[in-house]
Amino acid sequence: MKFTKMHGAGNDYVYINCFEEKVDDPVILSQRVSNRNFGIGSDGLILIMPSDKADVRMRMFNPDGSEGEMCGNGIRCVAKYVYDHGLVKKLNIDVETGNGVLALDLFTGGSGLVERVSVNMGPPKLMRSELPMTGPANEQAIAVTLPLAQGEVEATCLSMGNPHCVVFVDDVENCALETIGPLLENHEYFPNRINVEFVQVVNRTEVIQRTWERGAGETLACGTGASAVTVAGVLTGRTERKIINHLRGGDLQMEWLEEGPVMMTGPAVEVFSGDFNPR
Amino acid sequence: MKFTKMHGAGNDYVYINCFEEKVDDPVILSQRVSNRNFGIGSDGLILIMPSDKADVRMRMFNPDGSEGEMCGNGIRCVAKYVYDHGLVKKLNIDVETGNGVLALDLFTGGSGLVERVSVNMGPPKLMRSELPMTGPANEQAIAVTLPLAQGEVEATCLSMGNPHCVVFVDDVENCALETIGPLLENHEYFPNRINVEFVQVVNRTEVIQRTWERGAGETLACGTGASAVTVAGVLTGRTERKIINHLRGGDLQMEWLEEGPVMMTGPAVEVFSGDFNPR
Repeated sequence: MKFTKMHGAGNDYVYINCFEEKVDDPVILSQRVSNRNFGIGSDGLILIMPSDKADVRMRMFNPDGSEGEMCGNGIRCVAKYVYDHGLVKKLNIDVETGNGVLALDLFTGGSGLVERVSVNMGPPKLMRSELPMTGPANEQAIAVTLPLAQGEVEATCLSMGNPHCVVFVDDVENCALETIGPLLENHEYFPNRINVEFVQVVNRTEVIQRTWERGAGETLACGTGASAVTVAGVLTGRTERKIINHLRGGDLQMEWLEEGPVMMTGPAVEVFSGDFNPR
Repeated sequence: MKFTKMHGAGNDYVYINCFEEKVDDPVILSQRVSNRNFGIGSDGLILIMPSDKADVRMRMFNPDGSEGEMCGNGIRCVAKYVYDHGLVKKLNIDVETGNGVLALDLFTGGSGLVERVSVNMGPPKLMRSELPMTGPANEQAIAVTLPLAQGEVEATCLSMGNPHCVVFVDDVENCALETIGPLLENHEYFPNRINVEFVQVVNRTEVIQRTWERGAGETLACGTGASAVTVAGVLTGRTERKIINHLRGGDLQMEWLEEGPVMMTGPAVEVFSGDFNPR
């Protein structure tokens, strides 16, 4: 079975071109290929498929076989793959995801191959009920105080299709991510649990983010998280609408447009292609 | 650059066939390919090369670029590779390593491909000076008591080319590997640090091993460690000379021959082959 391994800001997936390959059971396949010792090793499996409502369709599966709606770092790699491999020869493409059809702009480098991709991540959803988060359904949770066993944390909570809790800290390298992260992830305020971003503001156009992903722990990058951070920075008066976000796995250029959606621009890298022997 | 990813009991390396590919700087290459998010992802790099004193030569490099002498799980995969890919079409081969020339027996399955490999791991070295370990140079360290901050641990220490400290426990799943492991690894008794095996005896021919590797933490398997465990089991009267050792990543059949060397037999699996784009 032919595959290609790609990453966006260190968020790495095994990509299968389903225009050519047939995948019978992606749930099992994702568990097998994702294993970093016995399989190919990845944050999951992404199938690149024909679509009847967009230029191409992506389906993504986590290492446990569960299906995810969308991945901001993964979709950039889908765009690079379909352009570089001649499946869709346009620099503005639509991709069908589990979270609707998203519009992407592709930017090529000197080699003629795609190096960076801009994704319309859609507008944030700010009401507590949209996360979900306990409390008044039609209230926002901007700079709210969350009680924890060892004190209080100020956080801004919102949804970018999935729920995020943004915590600004003075020193992100030495913050208590590994203790506070799981406490917030599983806090009683969040019935579906939550992703947590710890963010240090460098200046009004530059932040450093560390990511605690729901069910995964610390990860190198999270596109919806970077979008939530951009919105939270504006809503709490800390940053401009257009920022550079330094994540563990790379930099993302972020902009929350006046008209609503968050735009994310970042790298897409093809690392290797191969043939998997399922023995 | 073409490569093949293989594993032996979950210990996985990127293998390069240097009969065909040219590797200029294996130190840098190992660091790049080993990275599990940005590279291919592995426990290191193994080069399969021509030898003027054996059928084939292996050089192994750790993820930090340092060169290792030998890897008991890796050498089985070298044997499988050279047989399956037609480089050496014999079922008894010699492999040149940084730890001398080792003799291997290959066992094929129904497909005609190698499935299991037996390796002569050489005889144990039992003197403290051979580890090295502090204390009288020509004394052995069998069932010695090591003082730790939180109490004492009984251990048997010996070398299989690299130093090992074997600790027998009642319940290996719930032993304090993550606290005791690093304390023993860095104990003042071991000037070059040490690998630590925690072992539960199931019966006189069957043990369960967890491995704390020097500089790496817990790993899925360690061939020299499994050899040290076999010797320690005999020397302390717990097990027979021939045992099955259940490691996290798979089972190894072990035997300490009367004439001295330890024989290890275990699986070798080819997972995928690919082409790495160093961009």
